[in-house]
Amino acid sequence: MRALYTDLYQLTMAAGYWMSGKTGETATFELFVRRLPPNRDYLVVCGLEQAIEYLTGLRFLDREIAYLKTLPQFERVPVGFWDYLADFRFTGDLFAVPEGTVLFPGEPILTVRAPLLEAQIPETYLLSTIGFQTVIASKAARILTAAAGRDVVEFGSRRAHAPEAGCLAGRAAYLAGCVGTSNVEAGMRFAVPVFGTAAHSWILSFGDESLAFRKLQELLGTRTVQLIDTYDTIEGARNAVSVGKPLWGVRLDSGDLLKLSNEVRQILDEAGMSETKIMATNDLDEDTIAALVAAGAPIDVFGVGTSLATSFDAPALSAVYKLVEIESLGHTRYASKHSEGKRSLPGAKQVFRLPDRDIVGLQSETPPQGAERLLRQVIASGQAIVDEKNIRRIQEHARRQIADYGKPNRLVELSASLARLAASH
Amino acid sequence: MRALYTDLYQLTMAAGYWMSGKTGETATFELFVRRLPPNRDYLVVCGLEQAIEYLTGLRFLDREIAYLKTLPQFERVPVGFWDYLADFRFTGDLFAVPEGTVLFPGEPILTVRAPLLEAQIPETYLLSTIGFQTVIASKAARILTAAAGRDVVEFGSRRAHAPEAGCLAGRAAYLAGCVGTSNVEAGMRFAVPVFGTAAHSWILSFGDESLAFRKLQELLGTRTVQLIDTYDTIEGARNAVSVGKPLWGVRLDSGDLLKLSNEVRQILDEAGMSETKIMATNDLDEDTIAALVAAGAPIDVFGVGTSLATSFDAPALSAVYKLVEIESLGHTRYASKHSEGKRSLPGAKQVFRLPDRDIVGLQSETPPQGAERLLRQVIASGQAIVDEKNIRRIQEHARRQIADYGKPNRLVELSASLARLAASH
Repeated sequence: MRALYTDLYQLTMAAGYWMSGKTGETATFELFVRRLPPNRDYLVVCGLEQAIEYLTGLRFLDREIAYLKTLPQFERVPVGFWDYLADFRFTGDLFAVPEGTVLFPGEPILTVRAPLLEAQIPETYLLSTIGFQTVIASKAARILTAAAGRDVVEFGSRRAHAPEAGCLAGRAAYLAGCVGTSNVEAGMRFAVPVFGTAAHSWILSFGDESLAFRKLQELLGTRTVQLIDTYDTIEGARNAVSVGKPLWGVRLDSGDLLKLSNEVRQILDEAGMSETKIMATNDLDEDTIAALVAAGAPIDVFGVGTSLATSFDAPALSAVYKLVEIESLGHTRYASKHSEGKRSLPGAKQVFRLPDRDIVGLQSETPPQGAERLLRQVIASGQAIVDEKNIRRIQEHARRQIADYGKPNRLVELSASLARLAASH
Repeated sequence: MRALYTDLYQLTMAAGYWMSGKTGETATFELFVRRLPPNRDYLVVCGLEQAIEYLTGLRFLDREIAYLKTLPQFERVPVGFWDYLADFRFTGDLFAVPEGTVLFPGEPILTVRAPLLEAQIPETYLLSTIGFQTVIASKAARILTAAAGRDVVEFGSRRAHAPEAGCLAGRAAYLAGCVGTSNVEAGMRFAVPVFGTAAHSWILSFGDESLAFRKLQELLGTRTVQLIDTYDTIEGARNAVSVGKPLWGVRLDSGDLLKLSNEVRQILDEAGMSETKIMATNDLDEDTIAALVAAGAPIDVFGVGTSLATSFDAPALSAVYKLVEIESLGHTRYASKHSEGKRSLPGAKQVFRLPDRDIVGLQSETPPQGAERLLRQVIASGQAIVDEKNIRRIQEHARRQIADYGKPNRLVELSASLARLAASH
């Protein structure tokens, strides 16, 4: 049912491979990022759960095949190809770097080894789901670094690229270390903690700020966060204090957040509400957060929306999916494109991680002493064999990865074997 | 089934409204964009079809309600609220500017008038689907202007923010004037023309460029577009010529596109293939396209991916959804927030379009002589009454709109009535 979420050329190529008698060939494709966007030191890998779900569930529905048959590009395709699509299953292998792992350009995020058609068709979907979630997790890591230990909540669903992206952005942000998301679907589907209290419309619908504050307390009790800037932030803070406890926190959403957070902190403290927290929102990103933190703004929680859920300053990665090996009749051929500025390296690869550097080598070579192999098999002959779905464990893995490897200018080398193969090709 | 694609606070507010006895109040919310991103002169409205489909189909499934009941934020919510959600239907009205219309900041894209809870809950989903598609359609218009009449195809699914975004980006790009998309789902679901032939993996899988070219012709006949840069573009062009007709076009995907397109054009012309077209791809955007057009590059078709499908230079709009009126017991109250830098204007509005300017006035006021009302009712009491699904007609409307109004610095004024209401509020 998700088979048409792809570029047409994957399907025209599949038809062409079928017509050219290439169904018996086995291909290895690698998904990797060519280069880091500006302002990023590393990637946080994300999206594997969706990739596995997609590959193991990929089917062509009757109505999808019926639509394809109407396209002029398939006019010459024999009926056998449609039977092939109707029976399509992904029967290959998937090797992948675990979600939450810190990775660098040129290092495969995943490797698909499957009959040529089965490996070709998933390209677009895999790039989209892995690329998007990785771009968000990597942006989240950057924002969390700026927050320097203060909590960050992902609030960007309204600005995400359609509703499904909002849900996946919530997952990716949590995976990278945010305390949660406002996206309820992400909460239900992925067990991400969800947060949210009230908007300006809540206040406006009552017309009276103090009444609106009291009504929110009746609902939320000790979890109450009052939004205090609908009319005037300082007035709002005084009203929140008058209405009193229970009050988990207040939220600032406009104006000079440094000045206002200091003034509001003072109002709260003078009222004996020193445990009431201050949350700030309003088009925050890593730069504004870093500036607030550096200036000592008494903000306990940052809610980050647009900049996080769209990775606003760098909304896409140069992620690609390249053929590196093809086997036909027991003979393996290495493949690499030579296009200007877009060369790819032949051969199925592995990433060997050492404390001080990564070595990109061939899957088949002996790892350097003490090195960890980052790519692990997660689908074997079409069956998922590893599928870490516990997002808290993934978050913990990401936390350790970012602490250990999330630094600029990490050394990434090619192994001697890979360099030799590339040179000879 | 899409009810949880929302921010949690929409649902906590709904619960709070319910507990506060506000189910009988009728609210009017407006969705508009606060300001244009840099490098945009206007918006091309897009996403209404998805908004109507969402509102008329919005339901809470049992498992969604079961999940919500587990959240601590709903601990104090009485059982009656869950019954309310189980029976939830959108029974209100929707007024909207037709898709493909050129619009400006401050002008409502749509207006929801419904019982308060029904109007509040859809906020996040509507912002996400309308905001995203409008950002893509507006970017497409900009790219099409740069292409100055040459064809543009949307090729960005692999870089879109998850697969559903790729499909909707294909729709939005076509609606704004592209000739089609590579996204097959968009083709099936929205009847958008789909394009695509072969990738580098096609060439690499054969190992022999000429053989790969011949095999593609067997499949595609007169629709064949040969990708000629896998090894060397000039060599590739010569190979394409040797293999000969049928050949609709060749595609360049790397290197200096101005230089290569001229050289390839010459090779084609000298071989008597002056009707063979040249398509160019490779991280194109409006700036690179404008430069190629200005330099007279003989490129017939531009394939645009990342920059279009993510609106790379401005991946989000400052779209908001604001309460402007609330009616309770026959009494109407106007609402507006006064937050610093984020003021909103009270009252349900209409956009009156005159040849030389737009006037944003009140829905209830008499339009200026000769003015067109841009907002039209599309849902009445929960039923869709107008729903233009013919995307070719929408594209034609967009073409005329962009020609007539897609210019910088169009005058947008407030009517005297709206200005008075805003001042008194």
